[in-house]
Amino acid sequence: MEILKVSAKSNPNSVAGALAGSLHDNHSVELQAIGAGAINQSIKAIAIARGFVAPHGIDLVCIPAFTEVEINGDEHRTAIKLIVEPR
Amino acid sequence: MEILKVSAKSNPNSVAGALAGSLHDNHSVELQAIGAGAINQSIKAIAIARGFVAPHGIDLVCIPAFTEVEINGDEHRTAIKLIVEPR
Repeated sequence: MEILKVSAKSNPNSVAGALAGSLHDNHSVELQAIGAGAINQSIKAIAIARGFVAPHGIDLVCIPAFTEVEINGDEHRTAIKLIVEPR
Repeated sequence: MEILKVSAKSNPNSVAGALAGSLHDNHSVELQAIGAGAINQSIKAIAIARGFVAPHGIDLVCIPAFTEVEINGDEHRTAIKLIVEPR
């Protein structure tokens, strides 16, 4: 599954475009976000991407889950992964 | 559809419990959140609620969308609604 890392500074429209493009090639895409700002941008991106793909008959849903990510080679932090796929 | 309002100070475990309880009585539940902190708590609550209902054979998904809410009777703000329902 392709993973798109989203930060608090990511542009939701850009992430939505990347998400829609990636869903053209993959069944599911994972957005990975650490912190409230990054999760906020991810959720906005998914709402926008729903509009991009809806005219093609695709109803996107998202599945939120916790995950552990490694930062700088050894530090571990809890991140949120949002698995996005057609219903 | 029942609406649960989530704030940045909401406890994700408590929201998850309310969500799971509400899904027992309704097909879908809407979480309504304004701001990054509230969206963060909502997403954590959905991830936790997935664990509550999974043993009952329910695979929860969420559909993020934009909505307008009225605050203090006249001010309008853009909020995020997260529609949560079984896949």
